Amino acid sequence: MGNIVTDLENKKNNAAAWFSDLRDQLCAAFEQIEDQAGALYSEMPAGRFEKTPWKRGDGTSDQGGGTMGMLHGRVFEKAGIHTSTVYGEFSEEFRKQIPGASEDPRFWASGISLIAHPRNPHAPAAHMNTRMIVTTKCWFGGGGDLNPMHPAYRRDDHEDTIAFHAAMKSACDAHDPEYFPKFKKWCDDYFYLPHRDEPRGVGGIFYDRHDSGDWNADFAFTKDVGKAFLQSYPALVRKRMDQPWTDDDREKQLIQRGRYAEFNLLYDRGTTFGLKTGGNVKSILSSLPPEAKWP
Amino acid sequence: MGNIVTDLENKKNNAAAWFSDLRDQLCAAFEQIEDQAGALYSEMPAGRFEKTPWKRGDGTSDQGGGTMGMLHGRVFEKAGIHTSTVYGEFSEEFRKQIPGASEDPRFWASGISLIAHPRNPHAPAAHMNTRMIVTTKCWFGGGGDLNPMHPAYRRDDHEDTIAFHAAMKSACDAHDPEYFPKFKKWCDDYFYLPHRDEPRGVGGIFYDRHDSGDWNADFAFTKDVGKAFLQSYPALVRKRMDQPWTDDDREKQLIQRGRYAEFNLLYDRGTTFGLKTGGNVKSILSSLPPEAKWP
Repeated sequence: MGNIVTDLENKKNNAAAWFSDLRDQLCAAFEQIEDQAGALYSEMPAGRFEKTPWKRGDGTSDQGGGTMGMLHGRVFEKAGIHTSTVYGEFSEEFRKQIPGASEDPRFWASGISLIAHPRNPHAPAAHMNTRMIVTTKCWFGGGGDLNPMHPAYRRDDHEDTIAFHAAMKSACDAHDPEYFPKFKKWCDDYFYLPHRDEPRGVGGIFYDRHDSGDWNADFAFTKDVGKAFLQSYPALVRKRMDQPWTDDDREKQLIQRGRYAEFNLLYDRGTTFGLKTGGNVKSILSSLPPEAKWP
Repeated sequence: MGNIVTDLENKKNNAAAWFSDLRDQLCAAFEQIEDQAGALYSEMPAGRFEKTPWKRGDGTSDQGGGTMGMLHGRVFEKAGIHTSTVYGEFSEEFRKQIPGASEDPRFWASGISLIAHPRNPHAPAAHMNTRMIVTTKCWFGGGGDLNPMHPAYRRDDHEDTIAFHAAMKSACDAHDPEYFPKFKKWCDDYFYLPHRDEPRGVGGIFYDRHDSGDWNADFAFTKDVGKAFLQSYPALVRKRMDQPWTDDDREKQLIQRGRYAEFNLLYDRGTTFGLKTGGNVKSILSSLPPEAKWP
């Protein structure tokens, strides 16, 4: 028993350390883009992440916490890259919904979440999140998806979509040829607005409650998802950031951002779950677009 | 039995006719304000309501419908005044939640809903909705509440708040001295964002499943709520519309509008209920602000 517990503690530490490491790499990549922005942005200063630590709970007991990182920049009108490691007990309401929590309500969860809203309507918004959860069971979840805000880019056969999907496929295929088709469909099914009969974006991958029985393999897969996002998304923003845009392009972007806000507030489980379980409200709602229109 | 049914049909017709009549009066009041706007708006044309009829269901059976009325104007950046009379059967999912629907799933519902987002940050946004619902039971519901978007106006002791509350109180007091305190508290409790620990606006009244046992009295009360709104809200907009504003005032308004969108998408029963019961998506989501910010 002692060895198993020690091993689980090592696993938790390794996962939490990876999420922090990935956060540092992503923040560095975003800040480098801010520095490299061209003439379109010459009157605005390059943005930097501001990091704000927070603690879970009311302070009477240690329930972990996290670091909210926000960038309000020139290429990235708004970007959030957050890490958190929290623990405690699920409320009665949630115990039945969470694998392994009905026997013992204690949980531990660590993860990274990223949301990026570039200013340029030609540059896609994106979301990435990976996490490790421990109850009496242990699993990984997460994914990454691309959200072009301009209609011209909201196509499966657009070169930006193809590049992003290829990166996610490659992370998946290194582990199991069945992962990509399964996790891509899960993403398409999940990031969908039924009341609009519209997808939120052009997809990517989504996986949850992922436990193949080999923790090391599952952790390696989760790391590869993060690395694939790091290699593909900043490159897409760099490719589009200096492309001039019109007022009409901006209007289209702001309307699509409204749909993005609708999804996150009406359907996103991370948002509704987080708001109901005492998560950090500012981090959770940092996904909302800096500006949106419902004309 | 024949008389009771006939009487119910008369009641339905009278209620539906009143909602249409009130709609016409409110549209006329809003369009008059559009015409009376001062020099701040001289470069923009006065707005007019565009009315779009819609039918409920897939067209295979008559399930009623409504008229969506939208104004994109100069004083009213966006306003919607909608009427609908719909009928059919509640889905299994909803039967248990609706009074009188578990015995017989058939329903009939008629109502008016109004949402107004003035352009001027000094002018309050507002919401009003009244409706009659028939299952095996019959009741009224609705209310009106004021949503100033500028922090300087978001106070119980501001003269605009006082004027609006006085109008609602007067509609209530003509029927029962207990109505106003009860329905005002209901409004404050309902239009509240728990995750922000903030009210949506400065309140007004909210009532639902209202059946005193005297249909004529309840209908008269519902009419008085509509009349009180008609007398008070357009007057507040007219009072504020020509007051100059700064970029900072506009920024504050757009941020508050973001909170308004959060409430409607996360919590509003009318929105979530409507989207799940095949309501008209465009009418339901017309409450969302024309422009909002989450900086």
